[in-house]
Amino acid sequence: MTTTDAAGLLAVAREEALLGQSEGGIPIGAALFTTDGELLGRGHNRRVQDGDPSLHAETAAFRAAGRRPHYRDTVMVTTLSPCWYCSGLVRQFAIPRVVIGEATTFSGGHAWLARAGVDITIVNDPHCAALMARFIDEHPELWYEDIGVDPSTVD
Amino acid sequence: MTTTDAAGLLAVAREEALLGQSEGGIPIGAALFTTDGELLGRGHNRRVQDGDPSLHAETAAFRAAGRRPHYRDTVMVTTLSPCWYCSGLVRQFAIPRVVIGEATTFSGGHAWLARAGVDITIVNDPHCAALMARFIDEHPELWYEDIGVDPSTVD
Repeated sequence: MTTTDAAGLLAVAREEALLGQSEGGIPIGAALFTTDGELLGRGHNRRVQDGDPSLHAETAAFRAAGRRPHYRDTVMVTTLSPCWYCSGLVRQFAIPRVVIGEATTFSGGHAWLARAGVDITIVNDPHCAALMARFIDEHPELWYEDIGVDPSTVD
Repeated sequence: MTTTDAAGLLAVAREEALLGQSEGGIPIGAALFTTDGELLGRGHNRRVQDGDPSLHAETAAFRAAGRRPHYRDTVMVTTLSPCWYCSGLVRQFAIPRVVIGEATTFSGGHAWLARAGVDITIVNDPHCAALMARFIDEHPELWYEDIGVDPSTVD
């Protein structure tokens, strides 16, 4: 069974976020699909699990999808508004559509992507928002590290 | 011995590009240093070697440097103008300085970074430019794949 509606696609990214949470990691998940709903790759943030700061959820899903000649028929789905790093990934590889769980706990480059012509859907999923809000409240130092915010500059 | 001048920093990234070339890969190298010239991580594009599209040279160097609480005292050095993906990395993690070997064979997001306040130095190194020009001439399909350009859209 495949799905192409935003809520159905987001369910896979949310599963990844919960997997990350269960591993003690930063609970952000993502998946790359074709526009026909075929899953190409899925992943979650692995900073804590692998000690790897380069594996944000979107880059983990992109990596899992392996090499492709182009991305014109793909959709990136992520539980959280993509940071500049992951927004840059979407823009460079000309991924035409991004589905986002929520953009309230963090707002990255999705408006910039929209201005560049990327089709952006924000689901406003309360489960995604609650998951991140709780994580940020309980582990602010991990969260700041993951988005490159110098903790000494935070009140 | 440490160096903080652009040419000295670039030499390390160029070594990485040549390593990539010797492995049959895309010859782009990068390194992350402290502003005092301490090497934190170095790497090169690993698309061909590892089948990993997420490891551009800059992300490979960033990954090799491991987890850090912040990047306010770092310099990213790369043989080629950073693409949007790698420019997004620099912006998200607030890396304050980027040293670039050349921006003639490809021009990514360095002007965008400069507008965001990043200190950009373009060395205009002829060795870096010759290395990329030859690679693009000999392996255009790999190069288009690495920057997400659909080959069917290229003349």
